[in-house]
Amino acid sequence: MNSNINKKVVTVFKNTNSSSTIMSVANNFQMKRGGVLATLDVAYETWGKLNDTKSNVCVIFTGLSANTHITSSDKDSTPGWWDGMVGPKKAIDTGKYYVICINSLGSCYGSTSPVSINQKTSKPYRLTFPELSMEDMANASNLLIQKLGIKKINLLIGPSMGGMKALAYSVMFKGTVENIILISTSTQALPFAIAIRSLQREIIRKDPLWKSGYYDYNEPPLDGVRMARKLGMISYRSALEWIQRFGRKKTSGSVINQNTFGIDNTSFEYEIESYLEHHAIKFQNVFDANCYLYLSRAMDWFDLSEHAQSTVDALSKTKINRALILGVGTDILFPIEQQKEIYEGLAQGNTKAEFKTLNCSQGHDSFLVDTETFSREIKSFLTSI
Amino acid sequence: MNSNINKKVVTVFKNTNSSSTIMSVANNFQMKRGGVLATLDVAYETWGKLNDTKSNVCVIFTGLSANTHITSSDKDSTPGWWDGMVGPKKAIDTGKYYVICINSLGSCYGSTSPVSINQKTSKPYRLTFPELSMEDMANASNLLIQKLGIKKINLLIGPSMGGMKALAYSVMFKGTVENIILISTSTQALPFAIAIRSLQREIIRKDPLWKSGYYDYNEPPLDGVRMARKLGMISYRSALEWIQRFGRKKTSGSVINQNTFGIDNTSFEYEIESYLEHHAIKFQNVFDANCYLYLSRAMDWFDLSEHAQSTVDALSKTKINRALILGVGTDILFPIEQQKEIYEGLAQGNTKAEFKTLNCSQGHDSFLVDTETFSREIKSFLTSI
Repeated sequence: MNSNINKKVVTVFKNTNSSSTIMSVANNFQMKRGGVLATLDVAYETWGKLNDTKSNVCVIFTGLSANTHITSSDKDSTPGWWDGMVGPKKAIDTGKYYVICINSLGSCYGSTSPVSINQKTSKPYRLTFPELSMEDMANASNLLIQKLGIKKINLLIGPSMGGMKALAYSVMFKGTVENIILISTSTQALPFAIAIRSLQREIIRKDPLWKSGYYDYNEPPLDGVRMARKLGMISYRSALEWIQRFGRKKTSGSVINQNTFGIDNTSFEYEIESYLEHHAIKFQNVFDANCYLYLSRAMDWFDLSEHAQSTVDALSKTKINRALILGVGTDILFPIEQQKEIYEGLAQGNTKAEFKTLNCSQGHDSFLVDTETFSREIKSFLTSI
Repeated sequence: MNSNINKKVVTVFKNTNSSSTIMSVANNFQMKRGGVLATLDVAYETWGKLNDTKSNVCVIFTGLSANTHITSSDKDSTPGWWDGMVGPKKAIDTGKYYVICINSLGSCYGSTSPVSINQKTSKPYRLTFPELSMEDMANASNLLIQKLGIKKINLLIGPSMGGMKALAYSVMFKGTVENIILISTSTQALPFAIAIRSLQREIIRKDPLWKSGYYDYNEPPLDGVRMARKLGMISYRSALEWIQRFGRKKTSGSVINQNTFGIDNTSFEYEIESYLEHHAIKFQNVFDANCYLYLSRAMDWFDLSEHAQSTVDALSKTKINRALILGVGTDILFPIEQQKEIYEGLAQGNTKAEFKTLNCSQGHDSFLVDTETFSREIKSFLTSI
């Protein structure tokens, strides 16, 4: 299953975990907006055992910035980004499900992306990478799933951008998804989210080190990526959480020094500033700027209604059996109305759908932080199907 | 009254209207955080006539980016930034009130600021301008009001940052404010607002043309100011308004050209992107980067509770007769809970206070856009006092 391993990504931003597998799934891969990839690799990681009837498959599509390492495994004992959710006896029980976490086409975590080598030029694609869409990511994932010999996905899970991919997948490959859990996602990008992502991309592109996409991989546009990430975090969390967590607390380095805006002044006076800096620096050091641009724009472009007469029409034709739609009231990026829309569309078809607004304070990121609440809902849903 | 006109601001970002007056109000002005200004000018503009008993004074403190030109006047017929609100027979009736709009200390619209010439060096202050606080702005305004021979402010109005100044003023000069209207403001900055402003300042400071504050006034850091303004606009408006206004509408320049991220690609695909660009470019061409940094940080630092045992304690001691507190449910920068806090604090003193949550879709900026709704509330309040 881990044959055909191709490692064609540039070292700097190749951040695949040791336990992930990279599989070549296609040649001359045709993309939605007209481009073609000569070769297509998809990175993935698995937990649990595939049963004989291949009826216990759980596929997880990730958000924009996640890698495939959702939780620790035999091969890689480091914690993953959703440890509390996936594992033996956890809500997504790896004793029952064969869990496959698939890295997005366009992400720097192993799948073909702007940091991959274009075999025609022997150089990284960078901005010659074709325009990317959510449908291309769904297609690439489907090619991997076919290659693994899997015909039906018993449970498809998609949070955030992963939910967009899951929606595209469900509509494009009707009848192959049996049950679905969609978390804090949307059928199309709304202007507030487009505005934030557009500004994030502009911030990256205006970093002088970005150099029109042809930056030195040893001197990448860290400032741009860091500031874009800070804006991301502002949109991923919630004002309420930050009041409770930080209030107006100051850092120990806080001083009155009449040098507030000196360029050498790297201290952050308020804890909220130091928190953003800390997390954004972690991100700038692992995520490739061009990959970020492509994935971000693909989210803006996504609109499920293109696949049918309307969004409701597209949703009502997926032939999914059971669906759980989870959203959070404090999410400003994927507001609760968008979760409700998905629920209503699925319910208009033959899908038995449930929709819950969870009372979490951490905004869009709640599914990553309040795993206790999300686990409870998901466990209850999975017990019922 | 318009004696002592000193024009000591650099030409490029000196954006005072022809009708505004600049008055020298102090020498050796001591600032809260330790700095001293050798000379202090304050710019202002007036409408209506001061009555014999000087009992019809209405002072308006502005938000961060506004100049003194609140509405057209005999001297300057161009429209102002709050035309619908101030004028003959309007909610703030210039047939009744003598309206004074005061430019903030630290703003590039005429008052002493980082673009003013430091007489000791004969150069603009730039980053040698002392650390600025809301209390310094209130003090500077009070010096102007004293110089104009006014002892009591019959009506003090402050929207947004102007409300912070008005709160500081009311607490620092107890008993001089008779009635107050506070709009979408706060007694202290909360972490969500600090996070946004901190990132705005970082974006400006990372513009290579900022040059540690010593930019060429003929080649200022326009990219940084423009992107900071876009982030401002994202926080000033609301997701709901943008859904209604823009949805996913595309501009006429929208094309699939496989050049999405080329640095020469200045087209904006979605109307929301083009809207932000249009307004942010207007701002980058009129507002000085260093002034922006100082005013922005002063908002973060503001905390009315420093003036007493607590915020409520400070508010309850202002000796204001009547107060109207207006907020908007869609405001994410100055949320409605902060308006309620002001109301409750004032009501605990002897102030007869009213609080209304207005049902406007335009977020923090609603007071500038939905003047019809705001006029109705203000007119009704002013009729009752």
